[in-house]
Amino acid sequence: MDTQYGGLNKMSNSGLNMSRRIRRTPYTEKVIEAGVSGFTVVNHMLLPKSYKATVEEDYWHLSKNTQIWDVSCQRQVQIVGNDATKLIQLMSPRSIKDMPIGKCYYYPMIDENAGMINDPVLLKLSENKYWLSVADSDVLLWAKGLAVGRNFKVDIIEPDIYPLAIQGPKSEKLMSSIFGEKIKKLKFFHFSFFEFEGTKQIIARSGYSKQDGFEIYLKGFSLGKKLWETIWEAGKDFNISPGCPNLIDRIEGGLLSYGNEFTLENNPIECNLEKYCSDKSDHDFIGKNALDNIKKQGVKQKLKGVLFDGVDCPPCSIPFPLYSKDKKLIGKITSGIYSPKFKKNIGLSMILNEFCKIGSEVLVHTPDNKLRKGIVSSLPFSK
Amino acid sequence: MDTQYGGLNKMSNSGLNMSRRIRRTPYTEKVIEAGVSGFTVVNHMLLPKSYKATVEEDYWHLSKNTQIWDVSCQRQVQIVGNDATKLIQLMSPRSIKDMPIGKCYYYPMIDENAGMINDPVLLKLSENKYWLSVADSDVLLWAKGLAVGRNFKVDIIEPDIYPLAIQGPKSEKLMSSIFGEKIKKLKFFHFSFFEFEGTKQIIARSGYSKQDGFEIYLKGFSLGKKLWETIWEAGKDFNISPGCPNLIDRIEGGLLSYGNEFTLENNPIECNLEKYCSDKSDHDFIGKNALDNIKKQGVKQKLKGVLFDGVDCPPCSIPFPLYSKDKKLIGKITSGIYSPKFKKNIGLSMILNEFCKIGSEVLVHTPDNKLRKGIVSSLPFSK
Repeated sequence: MDTQYGGLNKMSNSGLNMSRRIRRTPYTEKVIEAGVSGFTVVNHMLLPKSYKATVEEDYWHLSKNTQIWDVSCQRQVQIVGNDATKLIQLMSPRSIKDMPIGKCYYYPMIDENAGMINDPVLLKLSENKYWLSVADSDVLLWAKGLAVGRNFKVDIIEPDIYPLAIQGPKSEKLMSSIFGEKIKKLKFFHFSFFEFEGTKQIIARSGYSKQDGFEIYLKGFSLGKKLWETIWEAGKDFNISPGCPNLIDRIEGGLLSYGNEFTLENNPIECNLEKYCSDKSDHDFIGKNALDNIKKQGVKQKLKGVLFDGVDCPPCSIPFPLYSKDKKLIGKITSGIYSPKFKKNIGLSMILNEFCKIGSEVLVHTPDNKLRKGIVSSLPFSK
Repeated sequence: MDTQYGGLNKMSNSGLNMSRRIRRTPYTEKVIEAGVSGFTVVNHMLLPKSYKATVEEDYWHLSKNTQIWDVSCQRQVQIVGNDATKLIQLMSPRSIKDMPIGKCYYYPMIDENAGMINDPVLLKLSENKYWLSVADSDVLLWAKGLAVGRNFKVDIIEPDIYPLAIQGPKSEKLMSSIFGEKIKKLKFFHFSFFEFEGTKQIIARSGYSKQDGFEIYLKGFSLGKKLWETIWEAGKDFNISPGCPNLIDRIEGGLLSYGNEFTLENNPIECNLEKYCSDKSDHDFIGKNALDNIKKQGVKQKLKGVLFDGVDCPPCSIPFPLYSKDKKLIGKITSGIYSPKFKKNIGLSMILNEFCKIGSEVLVHTPDNKLRKGIVSSLPFSK
């Protein structure tokens, strides 16, 4: 009688109460063995948030080596059928008219008010088959609701797919040692098929870091352990470590997090996603009128970076209020951390238009009750 | 400069990594002060899962006294407009033709395949205004998708509402000491308006326990602290303690948990929800054909209770496989715990039809690698 109980007892000090509702992944057992020290929940699934290393140690390691990340929580919403392209196109201002098979698109999805539903990566598998690799909201229900409402001929499911990310500059060498030289030719935001244990698996050159890297869209829960072990074993030559999206790397690189930097309350223009909202694309989509109006009238706020005083940023578990020099509330820092690269604290913030000019002086109120001087910056942060 | 930083530092040992995405509630600060020792995440929001007491101590306290529970994660999906009734009705096999204003309905929602989308409590606020008080899935997106797809005239939002539950036999006395004698007349699954700090607040006689109790649908985040403090202060006369849904009480009472006992993969008949799927109701709804077919063909499995050997049930963070006497896998226990009332372990399980007869002998494989003898039981468990 086979079970998946491995490592279970080691979980008891994680603080997060586990249940079937908070879904484990094919890699959870290996993640626990590797010394995970904290989880969060994304799409009703566990996402490791820390191991033994500090965020800064992890940042330096990621910038020089290779890491293995359990990002199964990037659930796939698979849309297949005669109306698949029509449905996909309906959900985003970004045109997919010229999208080739084998390509990944960053794909902002909006509702009827142009509010952000999610910002997945879209994969085109064939003319009538797509995956939306989603951030933290039940896009499956949105897509199904639309499809049922419009009587579209599509089949929408969450398939048996569990992404595993390999990130860091040594990832190409590691991956080619397992999957062959062919993987070196894979360009950024493209995917192809590779063999693993007699199965064909999709691997994309992508990932939630600013380093080079790959995401293996593993098909088949039962293969997870073997995949992790194979990569772990081969990775020893490349100084592999277990990891997870690194907050310093993410903020420095201006990578957004749905639910943190933006929500259904925000439109894509505020989120610096104009380039995916071209006026030239002629397709119809939900929220088109609302978005056109927003473009005409202009937005009230914009997502910017803030560089602020200190080498000791407290955890940003509650947004830090952001004030103008004359103490007017002008925004909130929603993700913040100390940056070793800039030797200062950095944060992401939606800032009122009149205060969001690059170089503007602002004040950041951190939970240690300090009022720190800050400067508005463009994104990604640059020297 | 006002902030909500209170108690923040005390969170650091909770293991769960906090961020804006994992939303705090108006009561989180008070919950931390009250000694919360663990959280889970429901609807992208914190739900306390334990305080200082053990689950069994908490169970006994709940059965004799009164408790205050932060259940803000029961988010409301508010549907307002000319087509509100039509949309609500479209989403469930349960007829609302005779539903009066001021009533709560347990309201199974299904998709086009008759799969369970959620099992919220529906509140009818006026002829064209409803709240769905939802379990853990983004019903907001499902409802919006359908509404946009069908061009319904409705407005769908998540309003500024944060339920606080008062549960336990002394709750009526506590609540009437604050909200007046009128509240004693409130019947189970009815709601009415009560005054608090110059505002009108909805209070229902309901809650996720088998004890008497109330749920205050607090409108206004900023009132949360005051509401908690008011109840806490008055509660001292009734031996109040901080609490949360109690696993023993829940399983004994056969209360289901979406994501644990059932998912989108399950239909309402399997989940013992036949009474909400009457053939006599003549309304049209999504999944009607699929549900009719399921009724005709019969279901393959049913949700049942299992009483099984031991007074030492390990945490059910991974479902326990359930076997027939001849070692065939026939189901999984998805929630399990030791019951002081039955002096045995109890669990909830979807069991294959041919093995789910009340009194059938089964075997439960627990993570401590014991194979325990069990008996299939009806729900709720009864002596």
